[in-house]
Order: sequence, then structure tokens, then C-alpha cells
Amino acid sequence: MQGLAEHEKLADRVKITQKDLEQDGFSKNPFFHSIIAEVPEYHKTKEGHTKIGYALYFYSYSSWKGRAIYMEDLYVMPEFRGKGIGKALMRKVAQVTGPGCRLNFTILNWNKSSLDFYPNQGCFDVKADLGYHYMICEGEVLQHVAQP
Amino acid sequence: MQGLAEHEKLADRVKITQKDLEQDGFSKNPFFHSIIAEVPEYHKTKEGHTKIGYALYFYSYSSWKGRAIYMEDLYVMPEFRGKGIGKALMRKVAQVTGPGCRLNFTILNWNKSSLDFYPNQGCFDVKADLGYHYMICEGEVLQHVAQP
Repeated sequence: MQGLAEHEKLADRVKITQKDLEQDGFSKNPFFHSIIAEVPEYHKTKEGHTKIGYALYFYSYSSWKGRAIYMEDLYVMPEFRGKGIGKALMRKVAQVTGPGCRLNFTILNWNKSSLDFYPNQGCFDVKADLGYHYMICEGEVLQHVAQP
Repeated sequence: MQGLAEHEKLADRVKITQKDLEQDGFSKNPFFHSIIAEVPEYHKTKEGHTKIGYALYFYSYSSWKGRAIYMEDLYVMPEFRGKGIGKALMRKVAQVTGPGCRLNFTILNWNKSSLDFYPNQGCFDVKADLGYHYMICEGEVLQHVAQP
């Protein structure tokens, strides 16, 4: 999370603690769910990390379209990018989402690689349409993303 | 919901059915929560409605700040506006939210009365700040909104 915030040039915004995360994500009714990307020991980073990426999501709801999943974070450490790990994480989230359910997320304005990548996958920016700034992935596009 | 979509000039976007809503909102682990504003029989609309406004929200999560509530809808029928009903609904949602938890929502670009109203209450637009288009209500402002 700290890595993602640094990438977003907003590291000082992270106020959450490990205790908050343990409490909120690993209780009986968790506030969020997460998927972790892990590499074998022999690929670990020079700092010794084997957990090198993650996606964090929660269930949300649209009063027009019903059930949705909001993907809050998708992050891969810089040295592991370009290997399809981000795509694999997103695929897992799309698999949870299921048919008829939307997958929403937000992109920072200046994040050019994301602004190129997601529309290429078929996701669309609601902003262009309605004045919001949400990215939406649904229907066939979502099924496509979910495919192993 | 149909009334809100009409107000947003997007009535044709509503794809959800009564059955979806019953299933998703009134099961053991509901996907959303709602607060309904109701008037006594003698104030009912000419169509016979006594339920004249609602707020719909669900729990969301920020990986920087933790627990949050996302207010998906806040609606009051036109003839009942200007009486503080919207404010009362928002107050109830803010009370659920609790201290240390954020309240987020989105405003349409052209909705001038909302764009005036919410910043006046102390809510701020993350867009100006980060490139998102979320409204956020937290801390003392949220406590203030929550006060009866």
C-alpha cells in the first residue's frame, strides 16, 4: 500500500495502520477482500519481499444496475511489472465479480499508462459520459478479463 | 430510484428490478442499506405515495484511511424539497458512519444546487485535489452533519 501511494506521489496520505487492516479485513464480516501476488523465495526482492503485488476490492452497489465490485487498489512492485502480474490480479478480481455484476475503479488523471491500458481492455470512463470519473468494466468485457 | 434517474435526466439507465432489490438489500448479508423518508397519510402525494425520499448506501474501504460509507443515492421528491428532508436523510447516514469513518459520494457536474450545497456543509471535492471526482465528508464536518 505504501508502495502504491508512493507511485501515486501521495505517500503521506496513508494513515491506515496494520492493526486497522487486520481488524477490518480479517474479521467475520470483512470490510474488504484482497488478492496477493507472491513469487518463490529465489525471486524475492533485495529487501526480502516475496509478496510483490496485490489487488484490494469490496462489494458495492449501483441503484441502476445492482451488484458491483469496486477495485480500490491494483499494484505491482516496479521491478515485477511488464510480466502480466497486474493483468492476472485483475483477472482474479473479475472472476469474483461474476456475470451481470460490474467492476468499477478509479484512475488518476496523470496515470497515462493506466489511461491507455484499461480502455484498451474494453473498460470505459463514465466521466466522458455522465460527468463522473469512474472506470467501468462489465458484460462481455468483464467476462473477457475474467478468462484464464 | 426512477424519480432520481429522471431528475438526473438518465431514466433509461435504470435496469434494476424490484426482485433484484429485494434479493440484494434484504438478505442475510445485504449488498446495500437504505433509509426511507415517509410522510403521514394526510400528506401523501396525489399518486398516493407516502414514501417520499430515500438514501441508499453501502460500506466501502479506503486503503489509505480505512472504513468508509459510500452514499450511492440521496433523493427527495420535488414537491417535498426545501423542508430539510434531504439534510435529515444525510444526517442519518452520517450517524451510521461513525467517527473516524468517511462518507463518500458523487455529484453530477451539472447539478449546481448540489455543487453549492455540499461544499457549504464542509464536504470537499477530491477532484480538485487528486484528479478524482469524489466528494468526501469526514472528521469534524461529518460529526457536525451527524448531529441531530
